[in-house]
Amino acid sequence: MKKILVTGINGFFASRFADFYKSKYAVTGISHQQLDITDADQTLQIIQANSPDYIVHAAAIADTMLCQNEPELSLAVNVNGAVNVARAAVACGARFIYLSSDQIYVGNNAGAGPHREDEPVTPANVYGRHKLQAETEILSFMPEAIALRLTWLFGLPERNKKISSNLVWNLAKTMMSNQPAGFPVHDLRCVTYVYELIENIEKMFNIPGGIYNAGSENDLNGYELAQTVFKAMGFENRIEELLLKDEERFRDHPRDMRISNQKLKACGITFSNSADAIKKCVKDFSFGNI
Amino acid sequence: MKKILVTGINGFFASRFADFYKSKYAVTGISHQQLDITDADQTLQIIQANSPDYIVHAAAIADTMLCQNEPELSLAVNVNGAVNVARAAVACGARFIYLSSDQIYVGNNAGAGPHREDEPVTPANVYGRHKLQAETEILSFMPEAIALRLTWLFGLPERNKKISSNLVWNLAKTMMSNQPAGFPVHDLRCVTYVYELIENIEKMFNIPGGIYNAGSENDLNGYELAQTVFKAMGFENRIEELLLKDEERFRDHPRDMRISNQKLKACGITFSNSADAIKKCVKDFSFGNI
Repeated sequence: MKKILVTGINGFFASRFADFYKSKYAVTGISHQQLDITDADQTLQIIQANSPDYIVHAAAIADTMLCQNEPELSLAVNVNGAVNVARAAVACGARFIYLSSDQIYVGNNAGAGPHREDEPVTPANVYGRHKLQAETEILSFMPEAIALRLTWLFGLPERNKKISSNLVWNLAKTMMSNQPAGFPVHDLRCVTYVYELIENIEKMFNIPGGIYNAGSENDLNGYELAQTVFKAMGFENRIEELLLKDEERFRDHPRDMRISNQKLKACGITFSNSADAIKKCVKDFSFGNI
Repeated sequence: MKKILVTGINGFFASRFADFYKSKYAVTGISHQQLDITDADQTLQIIQANSPDYIVHAAAIADTMLCQNEPELSLAVNVNGAVNVARAAVACGARFIYLSSDQIYVGNNAGAGPHREDEPVTPANVYGRHKLQAETEILSFMPEAIALRLTWLFGLPERNKKISSNLVWNLAKTMMSNQPAGFPVHDLRCVTYVYELIENIEKMFNIPGGIYNAGSENDLNGYELAQTVFKAMGFENRIEELLLKDEERFRDHPRDMRISNQKLKACGITFSNSADAIKKCVKDFSFGNI
């Protein structure tokens, strides 16, 4: 049985990832309580002791506001920590998958999406800059590493697993709390069902190293995507009451952080579009008015 | 590794049960598509071929209205089907656990709860009568069988598993749909978190044969229990708007189908009370306004 080591095990992605693959691989999940990735020696030691075939580096500070306010912390964890794990992967000959972010495409001079991996980028926030810096550093010494630029992941609560803020669950809570929420029309971004990503990770073990956008494509604006969630759950009748069309936000500088996933597709790895993925998630969980 | 065979694998209980024990036991789940339990020969053949150490018979027609309207179907599945599975258990020497119901205590002459296993019962509906008949027949030829009188189980949606109508999920949907719902104050019944039951099943493999109430005790009426769910989810502010106190239903004949679980407790097998179990479920899933 091949061995996978995944960092950030208590997080939204990795806790589901580890469970999903546990019968097919020997999966070791590592939390930040078990390993301080900012400590290069400790990182090398613990990872070498595990001698994995694959490392999926999911641990990160993903709170963009926190990174903005504490850039040194972000640098330590999101750049140097990632580099430490990547160097340990080199040391034990493990295939390395780094979870990067579509925030890299949110730039002051960003053009229209869908964005491609080879276009010039100028990330506008600390989080995006640090994700880009980590990609660059890692690939400089390990060209066979794989950096996945993820979109905003969504899923639903599961027993003994963390749930993060995400479009589908946030909208379920909007309904439960009965508090109307605004969604910008001048905002284009992709959202990806966490299980579509998880299922595809295994297929990435054998593709060429490099940077890949990894997620669903999407043509709907923020307001339309929110409508899609309500409809998928069978609560179309609550759209008018709860979903406010925000025409102001991003009006002067429309945001378009959509990805193109054609590079992964050329490797045979595909994703549903965001609207279909939302329907699939709701159906998988029978989550709705049924 | 000991072998467990569980029937009704696509149902709310068995799908979760099988997943829960799959790393500790060799669990075989059987659906009604795979085995028609009303066919005694086929039942014997398929179960003997599996030669389980334990059989948990969860398959049933649990829709009480359907049983009321089609008593012959109910008899065929809920009595004769259960007896066929029990006879197969005898044939292969498997320990047999039969899932019965607290509906047995809903009788025309029922006294106040909490009800005990040895009290005289006169079930008022077809479903309850057939559950009682199955218990009686099975124990007549296999005294070491275990019949568990379950209360109304609750849980939350999970990926690729069936969700049934249950108090906690129904109330989440009440909030999402924003449709007020009435809850009777003259109604006392217990509800049990499906995972507390599942965790306890393993401990029942070694207790003496017989009938056991298996679930949470409860002192709250229907309206109070519904309030408990809203509070556990952090939506106390929605109680007044959505939970209607129904003072009419059961007013002339207050319903009290509560169980006592002291017999199982004497075997060292315990359950939280219903209110605490609701809080545990909501916490396990991080399901709420958090």
